[in-house]
Amino acid sequence: MPVEAIKYVTKVDLSKSGDEQPQVHNRWHPDVPFTETIKPGEVVKAECLDWTGNQIGNNDSADDLRHVDLTRIHYLSGPYNVEGAEPGDALVVEIKDVQPLERQPWGYSGVFHKTNGGGFLDRFYEQCAKAIFDFNGIHATSRHIPHVKFTGLVHPGIMGTAPSAEVLKEWNTREKSLVDEIQSQHDTPVAQLPKTDGANCGSATGKLKDLIAKEGARTIPGRPEHGGNCDIKNLSRGSKCYFPVYVKGAKFSIGDLHFSQGDGEISFCGAIEMAGVVTLSFSIIKDGIKKMALKSPLFMPGDVQNHYGPSRFLTFEGFSVDEKGKQLHLCATTAYRQACIRVIEYLRRFGYNDYQIYIFLSCAPIEGHLAGVVDVPNACTTLGLPMDVFDFDVSPEAEIQKRDMGNCAFVSGYDHPVHFDFDSIREQK
Amino acid sequence: MPVEAIKYVTKVDLSKSGDEQPQVHNRWHPDVPFTETIKPGEVVKAECLDWTGNQIGNNDSADDLRHVDLTRIHYLSGPYNVEGAEPGDALVVEIKDVQPLERQPWGYSGVFHKTNGGGFLDRFYEQCAKAIFDFNGIHATSRHIPHVKFTGLVHPGIMGTAPSAEVLKEWNTREKSLVDEIQSQHDTPVAQLPKTDGANCGSATGKLKDLIAKEGARTIPGRPEHGGNCDIKNLSRGSKCYFPVYVKGAKFSIGDLHFSQGDGEISFCGAIEMAGVVTLSFSIIKDGIKKMALKSPLFMPGDVQNHYGPSRFLTFEGFSVDEKGKQLHLCATTAYRQACIRVIEYLRRFGYNDYQIYIFLSCAPIEGHLAGVVDVPNACTTLGLPMDVFDFDVSPEAEIQKRDMGNCAFVSGYDHPVHFDFDSIREQK
Amino acid sequence: MPVEAIKYVTKVDLSKSGDEQPQVHNRWHPDVPFTETIKPGEVVKAECLDWTGNQIGNNDSADDLRHVDLTRIHYLSGPYNVEGAEPGDALVVEIKDVQPLERQPWGYSGVFHKTNGGGFLDRFYEQCAKAIFDFNGIHATSRHIPHVKFTGLVHPGIMGTAPSAEVLKEWNTREKSLVDEIQSQHDTPVAQLPKTDGANCGSATGKLKDLIAKEGARTIPGRPEHGGNCDIKNLSRGSKCYFPVYVKGAKFSIGDLHFSQGDGEISFCGAIEMAGVVTLSFSIIKDGIKKMALKSPLFMPGDVQNHYGPSRFLTFEGFSVDEKGKQLHLCATTAYRQACIRVIEYLRRFGYNDYQIYIFLSCAPIEGHLAGVVDVPNACTTLGLPMDVFDFDVSPEAEIQKRDMGNCAFVSGYDHPVHFDFDSIREQK
Amino acid sequence: MPVEAIKYVTKVDLSKSGDEQPQVHNRWHPDVPFTETIKPGEVVKAECLDWTGNQIGNNDSADDLRHVDLTRIHYLSGPYNVEGAEPGDALVVEIKDVQPLERQPWGYSGVFHKTNGGGFLDRFYEQCAKAIFDFNGIHATSRHIPHVKFTGLVHPGIMGTAPSAEVLKEWNTREKSLVDEIQSQHDTPVAQLPKTDGANCGSATGKLKDLIAKEGARTIPGRPEHGGNCDIKNLSRGSKCYFPVYVKGAKFSIGDLHFSQGDGEISFCGAIEMAGVVTLSFSIIKDGIKKMALKSPLFMPGDVQNHYGPSRFLTFEGFSVDEKGKQLHLCATTAYRQACIRVIEYLRRFGYNDYQIYIFLSCAPIEGHLAGVVDVPNACTTLGLPMDVFDFDVSPEAEIQKRDMGNCAFVSGYDHPVHFDFDSIREQK
Repeated sequence: MPVEAIKYVTKVDLSKSGDEQPQVHNRWHPDVPFTETIKPGEVVKAECLDWTGNQIGNNDSADDLRHVDLTRIHYLSGPYNVEGAEPGDALVVEIKDVQPLERQPWGYSGVFHKTNGGGFLDRFYEQCAKAIFDFNGIHATSRHIPHVKFTGLVHPGIMGTAPSAEVLKEWNTREKSLVDEIQSQHDTPVAQLPKTDGANCGSATGKLKDLIAKEGARTIPGRPEHGGNCDIKNLSRGSKCYFPVYVKGAKFSIGDLHFSQGDGEISFCGAIEMAGVVTLSFSIIKDGIKKMALKSPLFMPGDVQNHYGPSRFLTFEGFSVDEKGKQLHLCATTAYRQACIRVIEYLRRFGYNDYQIYIFLSCAPIEGHLAGVVDVPNACTTLGLPMDVFDFDVSPEAEIQKRDMGNCAFVSGYDHPVHFDFDSIREQK
Repeated sequence: MPVEAIKYVTKVDLSKSGDEQPQVHNRWHPDVPFTETIKPGEVVKAECLDWTGNQIGNNDSADDLRHVDLTRIHYLSGPYNVEGAEPGDALVVEIKDVQPLERQPWGYSGVFHKTNGGGFLDRFYEQCAKAIFDFNGIHATSRHIPHVKFTGLVHPGIMGTAPSAEVLKEWNTREKSLVDEIQSQHDTPVAQLPKTDGANCGSATGKLKDLIAKEGARTIPGRPEHGGNCDIKNLSRGSKCYFPVYVKGAKFSIGDLHFSQGDGEISFCGAIEMAGVVTLSFSIIKDGIKKMALKSPLFMPGDVQNHYGPSRFLTFEGFSVDEKGKQLHLCATTAYRQACIRVIEYLRRFGYNDYQIYIFLSCAPIEGHLAGVVDVPNACTTLGLPMDVFDFDVSPEAEIQKRDMGNCAFVSGYDHPVHFDFDSIREQK
Repeated sequence: MPVEAIKYVTKVDLSKSGDEQPQVHNRWHPDVPFTETIKPGEVVKAECLDWTGNQIGNNDSADDLRHVDLTRIHYLSGPYNVEGAEPGDALVVEIKDVQPLERQPWGYSGVFHKTNGGGFLDRFYEQCAKAIFDFNGIHATSRHIPHVKFTGLVHPGIMGTAPSAEVLKEWNTREKSLVDEIQSQHDTPVAQLPKTDGANCGSATGKLKDLIAKEGARTIPGRPEHGGNCDIKNLSRGSKCYFPVYVKGAKFSIGDLHFSQGDGEISFCGAIEMAGVVTLSFSIIKDGIKKMALKSPLFMPGDVQNHYGPSRFLTFEGFSVDEKGKQLHLCATTAYRQACIRVIEYLRRFGYNDYQIYIFLSCAPIEGHLAGVVDVPNACTTLGLPMDVFDFDVSPEAEIQKRDMGNCAFVSGYDHPVHFDFDSIREQK
Repeated sequence: MPVEAIKYVTKVDLSKSGDEQPQVHNRWHPDVPFTETIKPGEVVKAECLDWTGNQIGNNDSADDLRHVDLTRIHYLSGPYNVEGAEPGDALVVEIKDVQPLERQPWGYSGVFHKTNGGGFLDRFYEQCAKAIFDFNGIHATSRHIPHVKFTGLVHPGIMGTAPSAEVLKEWNTREKSLVDEIQSQHDTPVAQLPKTDGANCGSATGKLKDLIAKEGARTIPGRPEHGGNCDIKNLSRGSKCYFPVYVKGAKFSIGDLHFSQGDGEISFCGAIEMAGVVTLSFSIIKDGIKKMALKSPLFMPGDVQNHYGPSRFLTFEGFSVDEKGKQLHLCATTAYRQACIRVIEYLRRFGYNDYQIYIFLSCAPIEGHLAGVVDVPNACTTLGLPMDVFDFDVSPEAEIQKRDMGNCAFVSGYDHPVHFDFDSIREQK
């Protein structure tokens, strides 16, 4: 009885841009043609491009990051037609494995320029920075952030079923309302509305292609109805996930693979981004949306995750008083930003610069918790740093010994500061 | 060599109100007189009142909750004078143990009335509800929320060093600014400014007492400078914490003990509140604020916590689209509220009513994570439910079998609804 | 509704010897009178003496250990009559908590003299040694083994139901057969047969007392039929255990409390022995022996244990080639002894003497696994050392820096060696 | 900067027998020629044959198992010459990953015939049985043992440095002594002495080949001096191991890959045996044997292992009273055998037959601990069954519902019993 290797439903080409590959797509739309039909119970593999579709190189400059085209991103494998799935069902997806490609054993994490992507701390760190990570089996290390090694909690940043026409309309309407309402108060985009530029509509052609490009929802945000770019680090190997089905066949897509990510993925391109391969299987719960009261995806993680003892997390507290000293009202987002800043101030004492720490926080398996969200006016969050990923002692009572920490990759010819003095922006009392 | 039991630095009286006990206090102020002097390295025990100072009874009515006086809360044990601590130092606190009092083996968790405390979901659940939990060794169970049993991740909700006059002034100023700015847009208080009513100023008398009552910061919020009411569930037994010192002797206070709490403590009085006893020791890092870049407390948890495998967390996703379908901009607070609502819709299928689930989410050891905070416009959060705390199968593929789940305690003669129809408030498209 | 503290079913006296306390007993016999009746579902507390019944003091000499009377040990609380339990049932015991007594916050661990108790390594370490541990909340530290601090995985060393007359007869018969068969080849006792000396028969008097003293099984060994002195460190707080019932009322007894123990409890009195209090409840599975095929106790541990990440265990391998270089056949016991020796050789480089390490291995939460038991002729075992219990780096690549490690307590006026040269006994080739 | 895939130092051929492949070897000898030179710090991949060198097929018969040639096993990849390693050094090996081969996504576990390999329970189960496991990403399932799915704790069963001539002589001498001494009392081999039949001496030819075949130590047992076939399930991905070096270049070999194994690997071919690929790197600690007191290998596991909460282990106790009721003296091996028998009696109630359970215990990630080894005359061991690997409830209070559990693969035309009545062999009293 010859046994064959597991079947691939998608293969990608690492030498071509994502634009040129019709087995992937980068817009959410009910009419993107499916690429393969998969039976319930069947185990399959799907290769995925890195989120930029090969725009970023393994080198020591952030020039490629600076000029990345953000309309040409999130090339997702699929959509897949799951036999028997119908609107109203729940699609059960088992992520049997996620691995880097053997032929490309590296990935990258980066800080995007404030005017081209930005990130959680872009008000302090406006410039680009990049770190290349080498994948040696389960471990990642970077020549740009030395003295750190961690095991990948590998996961897809994006998974989702296709929206129905109705769901798609709701997305576009509500996001446009936000833009109409508050964009004028912001200096970076508050949402990404549909845009034909850069649309990869899979194998659609002609009018269908134009329609998808015109209406298709952008892939940047996760969305409650189907998951999408939820960037949940624990949605890793062995996870069993439940998605609402809105269209016949479910039209499930997956991509934006991460070798590792910290809670928050704070630098935007913050995970260790990579091309890779997922092993998947599907099953269907008929009428599952109603049976399970399933308005948003839910999941149970797998039973293997990076496993540190609780006492090995050096934990920073962040509250909703912003970096200028202004009091906000129960804003967990602000609170988490403060916790991130606290870590930067803490770790830089060991010799890292702020951009290195910013990237580290984005991609290492740090834990971000909501602690208290009801004690007016302060939300409290915590950020747990797994001390075991460093090859030296970073605990509070460690002797400080400045090491040569090198640098991350910057844009060629940069001369911008690499530290931010948070004390300088505190409001005068 | 006779060995003595560990020395108590504070004892409390469960038969008197917190007002009448001068060994505790409920305002943050540099001049609250210290109650005891403790040497570095000494191990001591301190009893603590429950946060309401004995206002809540072990009974089947929420009448006491309805009428609780929120100016008379958070009776903290201390402040303690730690020998040798000076402004600029870091105070290291080891929480050697936290236990309920043997003489009062129960606690409570409650939903506060919208007009008297409120909570994370008070826009849907305006009424009071209460659940009494019995402590049987490490386990808590409640006659008001059956089929649930969990181990306490016991912790103090509040710990902090005293503010200096300068720090206190900053708190009062910035919180007043918030009130001035946004209170008019809210129908519940956005902050609690100093108030003489209900102030317990410890052993202060005369003018000092009046001064503390007038200026002393309220204890409801945690604050970045010293921790305070941070409600971090993992700050439990065995934790080693680092606090900035602002006044001579540090004047450390502790209280608001929780037998168990979920991330977010969403129903406000959401932990299982209890009187109890903490075992503590202190040490000092001279000039620690500067050495450690210590602007907010940080800590390492202990090595014993409720320990469930990762695959035993049924995990719900929440995004920053609110319950009406309105898109918000990267608001993690809104996102977490949605995850809470998803759980209510999910668990009520087993027979619990919404108030029971609301309390459950507040006090059981659930995990709330920030997943993605940069993918405009949606923040994504997750809420992990440890399935092992139920004595029946709550996994997605469990057969639904409605059980008689009884009820939590309500205000006498209540006739308000116990379910909220979230679909009814979705905006019409 | 006044709520009372949990009821005590046994109290012990720390100022009297175990002999004088009739609420405890130290022989297994169906006719030991029960001390209390407990209803299924009732939660109760029971105090327990330390295993020697107050023979050992908190001091810096091992003289008391040297002369301990081993017929006067294992004073067990109970037996308890569980209402409704009958032969053939399974008794379900929930260990709700185990704590040291507040009035005696210390315990001890010791190496017993080869001629009075001995231990796993008594062929190398014949002398007595003692270490006193102070209990500070959940942590234990010892002035006799510095630089070590760990959290107690507190548990009863002994729990069991009473044997029926038939079961008792089987025990006495088979153990006597062993003595008859192999005692002559050993220089220490291979089993402890019934002996009237030192028997505490609880409240039995007259002829019954004499009968129990004469026939009652000794408590040193665990036994498959009922558990007994199984010394399983993970049978700790929150465990749910299932015992066969052989007599009406089950007659459950408990004692020999340990603050902490390593797998193997290698130095015999190797756990941190203590007096303490357990919180318990019982239930009954009718006809459970048959229903569950229950020939020996089984259990599910609680959900809070000392929790170290897997990578924090420095793991030593031991094979069934003995210390002289002699090959044994699949002997896991020999293999584990070798792993213990490897740790002694490893840790002594940091300045500890062999007796300190021997005690440490006995009482710290080390993990002893059977790895391979079929690869003739070598059984392989592993011994995992949790590195986080040391306050200095003990990893293989740590710089060796000899510390002043003081000493454990020895017999007064000792002058025996404290290191054993294992190379000296290798057989010449 | 083109980045290449990680370099392979060994490739294997799945279509040829292990005999025909000179890049592997199956004897331990200082003079086996090395196959590759690897620099310290270099990361490499090595493919490995399954332990039988392709003797076993993916089919539903155990005929191949019955007739497996046990002189032709344990084809190890290597030996590798680690640049700079010299006798006296410690070789540090990082196991960066272990994976099945993409081209062969299955493995097998088997009970060997009593007269051809045997196993831990061969006195009860003399016949052959086999189960094929399919590898779907990180999960294994078997058509021969239904309702079970678990994540692989993938590891090499064998790793070791080459012995020096002196060490080799010691091995051969001591094992021969054992044979001389006790073989006559056993009906299965107590050790495997050197044998030219079936020897694969790597690329050695002529007289060297003959010498190695004649003197080379067999690979069945692990040995304290170098590890070898230690079958430690936790020596998995991410482990960092330290081996004594006895010959120039260390001559490190690796093989016998296991997708999963339970502690004890009780059925001999008990792990899920597979061909696969390891990712490795090496470093050297000069003079490490002396510096580290390194007589046997030691290691720190990786930080990702199958992770179940402690309360999810149904734990069986085993004591050193054998299955006939005979008392043994502190024999942990006997004790563990009893725990295995208890599980068989327990699990067969759900419909599995004894051979299925025997295989299950061998290959699923069960935990075998030494609990107490000093309480004469009983050693106590525990066997923890992770309940989460079953897709139905196996807890003690589960309702028993016999399922159709199918069968494992047996020898063609078998008609032997599949249950053993342990009560039938109890000695009559």
